[in-house]
Amino acid sequence: MSFNMYMPTPILFGLDKLDELADTPRLPAGDRAMIVTTNGGSMMRCGYYQRVQSLLGSRQVASILCDQISPNPESDEVEAAAAVARAKGVQFVVGLGGGSALDAAKAIALLAANEGAAMWDYMSAGSGKGLTPEHPALPMVAIPTTAGTGSEADPWFVVTKSGSREKIGWGCDATFPALSIVDPKLMLSVPPGITAITGMDAFFHAAESYLTINRQPASDLLALETVSLIAGQLPILVDEPENLELRTVLAWASTSAGICEALAGCTGLHSLAHAVGALHPEAPHGAALIALSRAWFLIMAEAEPERMGDLAMAMDQAAEDPAGCCDPADFHPLFTSMLEDCGLGALGLADLGVQEDEIEELAENALWTMPALLDATPVELDKEDLMAILAASMHPDEMERL
Amino acid sequence: MSFNMYMPTPILFGLDKLDELADTPRLPAGDRAMIVTTNGGSMMRCGYYQRVQSLLGSRQVASILCDQISPNPESDEVEAAAAVARAKGVQFVVGLGGGSALDAAKAIALLAANEGAAMWDYMSAGSGKGLTPEHPALPMVAIPTTAGTGSEADPWFVVTKSGSREKIGWGCDATFPALSIVDPKLMLSVPPGITAITGMDAFFHAAESYLTINRQPASDLLALETVSLIAGQLPILVDEPENLELRTVLAWASTSAGICEALAGCTGLHSLAHAVGALHPEAPHGAALIALSRAWFLIMAEAEPERMGDLAMAMDQAAEDPAGCCDPADFHPLFTSMLEDCGLGALGLADLGVQEDEIEELAENALWTMPALLDATPVELDKEDLMAILAASMHPDEMERL
Repeated sequence: MSFNMYMPTPILFGLDKLDELADTPRLPAGDRAMIVTTNGGSMMRCGYYQRVQSLLGSRQVASILCDQISPNPESDEVEAAAAVARAKGVQFVVGLGGGSALDAAKAIALLAANEGAAMWDYMSAGSGKGLTPEHPALPMVAIPTTAGTGSEADPWFVVTKSGSREKIGWGCDATFPALSIVDPKLMLSVPPGITAITGMDAFFHAAESYLTINRQPASDLLALETVSLIAGQLPILVDEPENLELRTVLAWASTSAGICEALAGCTGLHSLAHAVGALHPEAPHGAALIALSRAWFLIMAEAEPERMGDLAMAMDQAAEDPAGCCDPADFHPLFTSMLEDCGLGALGLADLGVQEDEIEELAENALWTMPALLDATPVELDKEDLMAILAASMHPDEMERL
Repeated sequence: MSFNMYMPTPILFGLDKLDELADTPRLPAGDRAMIVTTNGGSMMRCGYYQRVQSLLGSRQVASILCDQISPNPESDEVEAAAAVARAKGVQFVVGLGGGSALDAAKAIALLAANEGAAMWDYMSAGSGKGLTPEHPALPMVAIPTTAGTGSEADPWFVVTKSGSREKIGWGCDATFPALSIVDPKLMLSVPPGITAITGMDAFFHAAESYLTINRQPASDLLALETVSLIAGQLPILVDEPENLELRTVLAWASTSAGICEALAGCTGLHSLAHAVGALHPEAPHGAALIALSRAWFLIMAEAEPERMGDLAMAMDQAAEDPAGCCDPADFHPLFTSMLEDCGLGALGLADLGVQEDEIEELAENALWTMPALLDATPVELDKEDLMAILAASMHPDEMERL
């Protein structure tokens, strides 16, 4: 038992917590902020952008808007936004939205503080230069409006190199949010399908943190609780998207899984999903994870039978009438039944536009761009292994065993 | 479900982690440190002081020693040490030892950064002036050598006002340790009796955080796990003090309970124990808690039956052969049996020198010096209630019901 713990972000969690933006002493210093959203316009339509702008204004913080971020943020976009932030003298960055907005805000905060730097100067895999930033990032405030990313409680952000097929995650002490506000009311606007997909992202953060070789006691506790909460509540929430109590549970599950990401991190399932996202930027991150997950967990059931049994038990305990499952073989049926209950049962890579002839490139891409997470996986997986997982994930509903 | 989370301290946990003092990038900046120990000389005899001094020296940090701290640190002592730290241009403070050394180091770090301030300028109860410090504390490094205090993972420190009967806890964002190193090997030197008493301190931190009105999901998870670990392992460790694996488990339980203190805090049991410590500075903090605890938990079983049932279940699950306990009434026998197994069964306030005619003053003292923790207790307790708890705790082995 040897580990390092670090999760310095103050998190304000609960209904209407967004209002505390008006008076929390934890807001970063400064009177000029940039609010970062994705380019879909939903933050404006829901009025969330206006509320954040107004709350900042109430304490004499002027804000500019960056709403040019793609759902899979690209390096050109964050570099351009960082240049604007520098030119405007922005002192902190607010990420408002799902994982894309939060991740982009972290990247912008880092680049804005490091004039002349390109995003890929810092990436430590793929074609990245692996440099250490000269200056810490500007402070970043995370306001998630989906339950899934966990980016509010970890230092990680994922960016795709523009014009390339590299989607890479990065983070350091300075990219932990300086403040996170998790207000489940902001999540009421998420439609059922996205609720299901983002909720499963949180499930994978938790389950993978329980399986990574970098696990530690606190992440283990949070991970099992998160898996249990999501297994029990996500299918119901997908049916009852207006249920504020369930929104709150899922918001906590997502933040809890984010803490797991900060303490332990995830595994090669995310390497593979990022490769899919690199080749198919239109595929939602959570959907790529879901498509790959059944094959992935079958491998894990062999590599880490005891821990997969624990995960099965955590899922089973969430059932109204637990069956006493604790065997690694119990995981697969419980998991596929949860996916079905969430309307995600048939989702495969083929549905995300992946072609059979891309499988080799995807495996190579995962090894090249996200090797660290494969190294953290409790079993060694070479290119052929990854190709087998990818092939089985084209139509996972037809898959029995690898 | 509404709460704020904040625990920014990086914690390096594990066997031989002390060695990382030589190269961790998380050491506070500066080349002059003060190492704070209590006045018993054990840090010198065990060679821990020399190791810390040498590790700091290896990175060109010169250190001065403050070894004038009482087991219950006093305001005169921390004020004098802070004056020395200022005069010597100390840039950070290292607390090395049990809770007393860590708490004193926090107080010294705060006062050293605020010239002219007295400790009681900041205390917000008793005769304290409740002022807000003008400057943040110097960074403080916590190196616990006992498993119990949890001070390595929370902002709190407890000081007694010299020449008075006020023992008060205080903390703010700036008094979280800047770095904590928890190396269970340093705990091998703790004799069985102190192992038992300090281990129970951690038990109370966890159990109280589970009962306080300020509880939150993450502290709840850590609290139940901590209670289970201590119930299962502390009695064995008291018999096998050289068992490094058990030392590691208890070290984690203590740190975990410290996180509970940071996230949720404790309850009026600590108010009462501090009152006992104020009148009887020679009584170990953990011993005062133990003496008061049986009466305290009987009250809690009525005030929070469901949560006391959870605590009983957590203790029971740690047994080799769990009996399926989950009733609040199960807590008392499980708890007293754990105390007996740790050799602490008969410990009462009378054993700590408390006289019957002090009971009223103790109750008044608790209400005057630590009202915030009584306010966080899930049932309102007035002076008469506190007197009843104190009276029953004089000889708690003779107590059946309050």
